[in-house]
Amino acid sequence: MSMEPDLVPSGLARVIDELPLVDHHVHGATTRDLPRRAFEEMIGESDRPVPEWMTRFDSQLGHAILRHCAPVLGLAPHCTPEEYLARRARLGTGEVNRLLLTACGAGHLLVETGYRGDELLGPAGMAEAGGAPADEVVRLETVAEHVAAAGCEAGAFAGRFAEALWERTRTARGLKTVVAYRYGLDFDPEPPSAAEVTEAAGRWLAGGGGRLGDPVLLRHLIWAGLERGLPLQFHIGYGDPDIDLRRSDPLLLRGLIERAEPTGVPLMLLHCYPYHRHAGLLAEAYPNVYFDVGLAVTHTGVRSAALVAESLEVAPFAKVLFSSDAWGPAELHFLGTLLWRRAMARVLGGFVAEGEWSAAQAVRVATMTGVDNARRVYDLGPGT
Amino acid sequence: MSMEPDLVPSGLARVIDELPLVDHHVHGATTRDLPRRAFEEMIGESDRPVPEWMTRFDSQLGHAILRHCAPVLGLAPHCTPEEYLARRARLGTGEVNRLLLTACGAGHLLVETGYRGDELLGPAGMAEAGGAPADEVVRLETVAEHVAAAGCEAGAFAGRFAEALWERTRTARGLKTVVAYRYGLDFDPEPPSAAEVTEAAGRWLAGGGGRLGDPVLLRHLIWAGLERGLPLQFHIGYGDPDIDLRRSDPLLLRGLIERAEPTGVPLMLLHCYPYHRHAGLLAEAYPNVYFDVGLAVTHTGVRSAALVAESLEVAPFAKVLFSSDAWGPAELHFLGTLLWRRAMARVLGGFVAEGEWSAAQAVRVATMTGVDNARRVYDLGPGT
Amino acid sequence: MSMEPDLVPSGLARVIDELPLVDHHVHGATTRDLPRRAFEEMIGESDRPVPEWMTRFDSQLGHAILRHCAPVLGLAPHCTPEEYLARRARLGTGEVNRLLLTACGAGHLLVETGYRGDELLGPAGMAEAGGAPADEVVRLETVAEHVAAAGCEAGAFAGRFAEALWERTRTARGLKTVVAYRYGLDFDPEPPSAAEVTEAAGRWLAGGGGRLGDPVLLRHLIWAGLERGLPLQFHIGYGDPDIDLRRSDPLLLRGLIERAEPTGVPLMLLHCYPYHRHAGLLAEAYPNVYFDVGLAVTHTGVRSAALVAESLEVAPFAKVLFSSDAWGPAELHFLGTLLWRRAMARVLGGFVAEGEWSAAQAVRVATMTGVDNARRVYDLGPGT
Repeated sequence: MSMEPDLVPSGLARVIDELPLVDHHVHGATTRDLPRRAFEEMIGESDRPVPEWMTRFDSQLGHAILRHCAPVLGLAPHCTPEEYLARRARLGTGEVNRLLLTACGAGHLLVETGYRGDELLGPAGMAEAGGAPADEVVRLETVAEHVAAAGCEAGAFAGRFAEALWERTRTARGLKTVVAYRYGLDFDPEPPSAAEVTEAAGRWLAGGGGRLGDPVLLRHLIWAGLERGLPLQFHIGYGDPDIDLRRSDPLLLRGLIERAEPTGVPLMLLHCYPYHRHAGLLAEAYPNVYFDVGLAVTHTGVRSAALVAESLEVAPFAKVLFSSDAWGPAELHFLGTLLWRRAMARVLGGFVAEGEWSAAQAVRVATMTGVDNARRVYDLGPGT
Repeated sequence: MSMEPDLVPSGLARVIDELPLVDHHVHGATTRDLPRRAFEEMIGESDRPVPEWMTRFDSQLGHAILRHCAPVLGLAPHCTPEEYLARRARLGTGEVNRLLLTACGAGHLLVETGYRGDELLGPAGMAEAGGAPADEVVRLETVAEHVAAAGCEAGAFAGRFAEALWERTRTARGLKTVVAYRYGLDFDPEPPSAAEVTEAAGRWLAGGGGRLGDPVLLRHLIWAGLERGLPLQFHIGYGDPDIDLRRSDPLLLRGLIERAEPTGVPLMLLHCYPYHRHAGLLAEAYPNVYFDVGLAVTHTGVRSAALVAESLEVAPFAKVLFSSDAWGPAELHFLGTLLWRRAMARVLGGFVAEGEWSAAQAVRVATMTGVDNARRVYDLGPGT
Repeated sequence: MSMEPDLVPSGLARVIDELPLVDHHVHGATTRDLPRRAFEEMIGESDRPVPEWMTRFDSQLGHAILRHCAPVLGLAPHCTPEEYLARRARLGTGEVNRLLLTACGAGHLLVETGYRGDELLGPAGMAEAGGAPADEVVRLETVAEHVAAAGCEAGAFAGRFAEALWERTRTARGLKTVVAYRYGLDFDPEPPSAAEVTEAAGRWLAGGGGRLGDPVLLRHLIWAGLERGLPLQFHIGYGDPDIDLRRSDPLLLRGLIERAEPTGVPLMLLHCYPYHRHAGLLAEAYPNVYFDVGLAVTHTGVRSAALVAESLEVAPFAKVLFSSDAWGPAELHFLGTLLWRRAMARVLGGFVAEGEWSAAQAVRVATMTGVDNARRVYDLGPGT
């Protein structure tokens, strides 16, 4: 079997390192200085305080920070947490962000702004810090909560939400729903009737609005999102303890996927761990389903190669995307991209080394997955 | 630790390459010429048209075709899809089938004829094309649908079905049920009463028969199949979008497995991806349960080694079988066998190279899994 | 990237080989002589007789016995089952136990005595045979069944159980529940009321007590266990056919975990295969959740490295423990420790060899996981 020796493995790794990745689901970096406690709480998905008998540096993500972020900040790999945090503090968050975000080598960012977005860099700030164009992904539930906060009658809710959604998404590239957090993916896949929406809105607004968890309204938002027509992202699987993972298996979305198929709206399954094989099966079966293994790639560190390999089984390669889902410390933005590049190089390089793929196929699939699929789905143009 | 160097790894691979595999669940090859669109639709499990912005050659299976089938047709590995399809067309389907089916090196075929069997080579045609004896596996639902199509009163259905089943299976080696597609594996494990069967048959026949999806009748077919006494195959997991994968977890079969245990009828769990570890646990717990990872081995290409490894965890090796589940293009028949051989050689060879298994154990387990277990379960005699 | 060559891989393996493991969930070794049939039945989880057409030596565990236990008994690796059993018989069970249990190199044993404990060595016998201190883990359901067997009125049950639990656990280090076997993990997470407990006790005692399967009483035991305050172990996943694996997914425990969080009682998820990734997610999310992949490590033999790797993904390393769950033949005690050491050395050594972890990190994580986490959770002191 023939292998192009200049591409395998170092050549392939170089090509993948230089891909101008489209991060199709990312949040802003924080501009706050982070004392150790705050930093540790932001490098896990748990919302609980870190117990005094442990440190979150004792984790795959912690090891990856010390291995890969330390050199970007001018330290030796595998330094101690104390050395790392001292250096981080000395440089200041602005410089840390500049160093780590430019090291991402992103080609385009789709920034989801709906979760504590006012604490973070927005799309413009991320574009400036990361040196790449950035567009917005709008969270449906946040739009609805703003409508409620602005004051709204139950009967007017559906109309006001539709208006607000069009207004908020005038330049957005995608929508996002966190129905997995707010209810579960086992919702009724049919769109609710107008009367049901009004009744549910009445209950919600009478309680003062706030965090939207009513399943009728959540379904309404999803169907309104499908009508809006932008690619619709779903949080799937791994997240903070607020989620009931039993009810976040993407296979639960089958009813909605089939009903949404005629709209042609791409459904983007995010993260998906530990259900990423299930997501791959849906992406194989349904033309309107796409997925990624973002977030989990970051948090599993050296093990991310196993996840990436498991995501490249039955799904056509035109249906697999890259995202970091980073939120807060710029370490997460950097590692989201670096660990994905490293995992792809290792997994695809392995396929080539075994003689099962050509090097050209490996380059093609890395480019599709990291760049081209997202550019096509989100209509981003050819890039630079 | 001692290793027999002549068996590891090339010797072991050679032994596995030469095993006269018993493919205990395969369908016929198509004799139609396949234009590109038809070919691409047949190399995925999705029943949707391939979107114009993608090609199914961009998949693990696509890469495996270009890598392994191309040389059988006289092309270089990793040729382009266009080169491959042009060569395929020039040779003609008859010659392509001959080349690929004889390259399977099968020792015995058990051909399931119940799904669009009239478009495909039957057992005799497969035996001739593949150079190996072929017997039939009869799909229960198809027999019942033929009974309905021939005209039948509700009260006579159970008797007519029993007669038809005995008649159709006079020389068959096994039965198959697609209850996973037609209802889900979460059916009531108890046999329905005669009155329930008559009532359900009345509803079904009044609607003109056709595709059988009534859970009472599906249960009746399964229990009638158990009474017939041939090994009973279950579709599990991965398949076309017609299946609700949430309801195809083999753990849902526990109630039936326990109730069927006294009959002594072997229950054969087919495919099983992504639930193959669940299937292995059932095969460990229950003497009457067997399983394979067919179909998924073909569709995951180079990743099939990971699946095969995951199938060799807790189940006794006497309970693991080989199948291809190929249907249609002979590429699927060839890759079903080749990728299994390659995966077994790699996985078992790795166990030997680590010093954990002896080479003799690896040969023994490959032979059990690929040949002997099926010969024993289906009573095929010693083979040639 | 710098690697300490003296620790990788042989140095790391040596450090891991010499860890004084805390086996936080183990049962006693049997002192009975074991004819082949009895031995084979004890090296699988199935409670069914081994069919005459197979041997349990044809399994990962069987191969691991012949590979690793044979040399401890003075035989060559990969001997035949007949040679192995003949040697075992010649040495006698006492000598076999002494050889295998001392070869475990355990530093502390937590012995669960609630399952057929009278057939096995107790904590004192295990301490003597294994050369390590041993403490007891008390099974809640067994305590309740003893209360019933001693005679008890329904209204007195709760009080009598509380008394018996305090009495039985005066020197115990932990509690264990087998609610997964007796009902399923999908029980109501709220504590039952006193009236409900009395009513359920009435039903159970009226039936003569015996095997406790009433969900109200099982919940009561769990809540009484939480009040007792010792770390509470849950059987999760893989076990004998008595368990419905569909209802043993640890994600089902979310409601209880959240309600138990204020008690500060550590919840120890045992075994967890095939749901070990689910367990890792819970251990990441909740400070009170810990887990291990015991039992499955033993039964998957050479494949245990894959399981261990999958257990080191998102959970902080302070939340992952070691156990063997061995019961009966001392081969299971020995392999539970040896295969864990071997898997950790291989997995962590791989992380180091790839340059992603430092050797010091690998040593630290192996020590936490194998020794320190358990010493902290069970308050065992610093060890010797």
